[in-house]
Order: sequence, then C-alpha cells, then structure tokens
Amino acid sequence: MSRYRLDVAYDGTAYAGWQIQPNGDTIQAQLETALHALTGERVTVHGSGRTDRGVHARRQPAHLDLVRDRTPKELKTGLNALLPPDIRVLKAAAAAPDFHARRNAIAKEYRYFIWNAEVLPPPLRLYRTHVPRRLDVSAMQRAAAGLAGCHDFASFTANPNRPVASTVRTLSVLHVVKRGSEITVTARAEGFLYRMVRSLAGFLIRVGQGAEPAARTAAMLKARTRTAHVPTAPPQGLFLWRVWY
Amino acid sequence: MSRYRLDVAYDGTAYAGWQIQPNGDTIQAQLETALHALTGERVTVHGSGRTDRGVHARRQPAHLDLVRDRTPKELKTGLNALLPPDIRVLKAAAAAPDFHARRNAIAKEYRYFIWNAEVLPPPLRLYRTHVPRRLDVSAMQRAAAGLAGCHDFASFTANPNRPVASTVRTLSVLHVVKRGSEITVTARAEGFLYRMVRSLAGFLIRVGQGAEPAARTAAMLKARTRTAHVPTAPPQGLFLWRVWY
Repeated sequence: MSRYRLDVAYDGTAYAGWQIQPNGDTIQAQLETALHALTGERVTVHGSGRTDRGVHARRQPAHLDLVRDRTPKELKTGLNALLPPDIRVLKAAAAAPDFHARRNAIAKEYRYFIWNAEVLPPPLRLYRTHVPRRLDVSAMQRAAAGLAGCHDFASFTANPNRPVASTVRTLSVLHVVKRGSEITVTARAEGFLYRMVRSLAGFLIRVGQGAEPAARTAAMLKARTRTAHVPTAPPQGLFLWRVWY
Repeated sequence: MSRYRLDVAYDGTAYAGWQIQPNGDTIQAQLETALHALTGERVTVHGSGRTDRGVHARRQPAHLDLVRDRTPKELKTGLNALLPPDIRVLKAAAAAPDFHARRNAIAKEYRYFIWNAEVLPPPLRLYRTHVPRRLDVSAMQRAAAGLAGCHDFASFTANPNRPVASTVRTLSVLHVVKRGSEITVTARAEGFLYRMVRSLAGFLIRVGQGAEPAARTAAMLKARTRTAHVPTAPPQGLFLWRVWY
C-alpha cells in the first residue's frame, strides 16, 4: 500500500462541490471513477477540504492509497487522459504513509474575485462575481482590517450541518486589492468555518456598496449571530487558491 | 432612421460563428432577436467581419439602423438585459449615417492564444489552444518575421466559399510573444483572407514543434497553394481583438 498526493485544479461550475453526494456529480466522484478506470482499485480520495457547489480550485491537494505502486507520471498522465477538461491533475507525487491532506494542512488561502465594472467580459462570467456599481474599496479595506486576526466568527458562518467545537478562527491575512476592474479578497487561515469566506466577501461587498459602515465590523463580530448584514456571496467568485503543509 | 454602432464581446464556444446560418445559433441572430424584443423593429446587424464557429471576440464593432431613436444607454442596457451572458454589448453609440462597420474598417487585429505547458488550467480551456510540448518560440518568431509584410497569402487561406479578387494582403504586424506558459500570436492587417489567421497560427505551431524549418517560410509563400504544411489551428484560441476606423 502506497500513499500519493494529488494537486488538482477544477472549474466547479458543473459540479455539486468537492465531496461525493447522493445527488449530483462531484469532483471527488470524478477522481475516484478515473482512478478506478486507471488502476482497477476502488480508492477514496481525501481532499484538503470540501468546496461547495460552483466553487473553483486553483490547486486542491488530496491524498489516496493504492495497493499496487504507480509512478507519479503514470498517475498524472493517466488521470488527465480520463478526466474531463474542467478537472486537471496538476501534480502527482509519492507521499509519506502518514501524510493527510486535511489534517496536515498548516494554512489555506482562498481568493474571492469581484468584477466591478458595468459589463462582465464573457470569458470571465463563470469565474467572477459581477458588481456593476462602483464599490468603495477603501471602506472594504478598513472593514477587512477589522476582521483580520483572531476572532469569534459565529456571525460569518452559515448554519453548519454538524456543530463545531469553536467558532473562533485566526485570519492571518484578509486583504482587499483592486487592479483595474478586478477586486480580489484574499483570506488566509489555518482553517475556516462553513461558508466563512463567502460570508466575509458578502459582508465586504455590502460595505463597498455603502449598505454597511466599515465601522460596524467590530459590532458584527461581537454579535456572534448570523444576520441579514452578512449575505453569502455567490460561489462562482471563489477559488481555493493554495494550501500549505 | 438613425444609425448606431455597437461594440460586442462574445464567447464563441456555443455559436456557429458570427453570421446568421440556416442551422445553428449565431451571434448576429442573438443580437437581432434581442433588438427586435427591445425595439419591435426587425433590423440587420452588420459586423466588421465574420468570425467562424467557436472563435471569440474581445471587441467586434457592428452597425445597425433603427426607425425610432433610442439613447445609446437604452440600447446598451436593454440589450445586455436580454442577451445571454456569453454575449455582451460593451458600448453603444450614435454613428454617422454613412458609418459602415465592415467597409470603414482601417485595420483589424486578431490574437491567437496558445497554452504551452503540460496542463491547461480549467478556466482557460475554452480560450486557449493547448500544446503540451515545449514550442521553439524563437523559430516561430523567425517564421513570423518572414510572413509579415505584403505577400500573396494563397498558401495561408482555406478554400473560400466565394472566390476573392486577390490573395495579396499586407500583414502590418505579425509577432509571437511568450509570457510564462502563454504564447500569443498577434496579427494586424487592413484585411484578412478566409481562415488566414488560423492558417498562420497552424503553420507557426508546426514551426515551433520543429515539423517545419522557419527557413521554409519564403518557399511556402511562393508556392501559392494550400498544403498539409499549413493546418488550420483550432478556433478556441482565436480572438478578434480590435478594429480601427
């Protein structure tokens, strides 16, 4: 039995998220089906985390075990020949027997992309959230500065299916950058709550629209309750960007 | 009767090209249907030129006439509300009564995008031609230098449906630039022959692969016959980039 690490990029548009679901195609199911076709083995692919329906990944690490050894090159080339073009194996590598894509992750980075101009160019339509009216980026940056750091983010998570031990998380990075018509929200943490990045993006967009004063951020954190002040921003702007081990 | 200019961006993936066809949906048909729904008028939209099935446009200028005046803002906003998101009106403007999107064009620029790395990132899969093996960019640049200028391009056009008076054209620009994994072929001319840019790209890719020596370029032009040395590169890498008036 040998363990392998795969780094996978995907366009989440056509999928019901990363994790295998009773209804709907998923990235994990596509990988496991391709692995079965390639190796004849029924394997479980463990991702660094789940991504929701419609969310993309620039690079999602995962691990799996195979009874019969394969070279990383065989795995990468064989899987890419079998997978649809919206899922690509960027890298395959032999991994230590105790490598675990989720448990060993030190930090994760998500990026949320907003297209802030009247017209969204067609090639970007599946990869950007379109906000036609000019957002106040400096207000968004002030709010982001208030959210960065160690806080209880109960106001910035959707009701999770399973309760979590703590809603305290440390955002080591939360910044907002505008370049041309594109606004990028970068969020880095050891771990995130359910729908936390889309909740942060949803709140920051409201701040940019002037619907929330940036100064309300501290009170929002203190409230520790999800309210209409924090909408969940649409999935197509979100990319799992990088995971550190 | 007033004339208007529209600048339109589109993702050609789902369309049988620009021009109305008996079979298959086209960009022109989508625009004329949306204009009819918006204005009640049956109008013809004249593009600066046709693009083939699967070819994209960053900015395709077009003109049309309306019996009842509309403000450019009404036209742009109204059309974008009716059109699918893979077709966007970037700009609408009142035009001089004698403005003609095709006849008045001074020069056109196309860009052909090649992704030259083992793996094509999923969000680019509809907008790049994938060439996994490393291309010899400097050979491509030498060949492009030999093709730029005024030549008979009969070897670099597909059999047109209708014969043309002359196959002589002047490529004022033909250059090849590599940035990271992306190779861009930029072609600028007053006018192009049928499938000329994809034929130039197809030949340049063969040169980059070492299948044709760059030094064969002059002989290729001299031959004035289409041969297997000049394949038509796939449509998804091609964008109509800019038209000058």
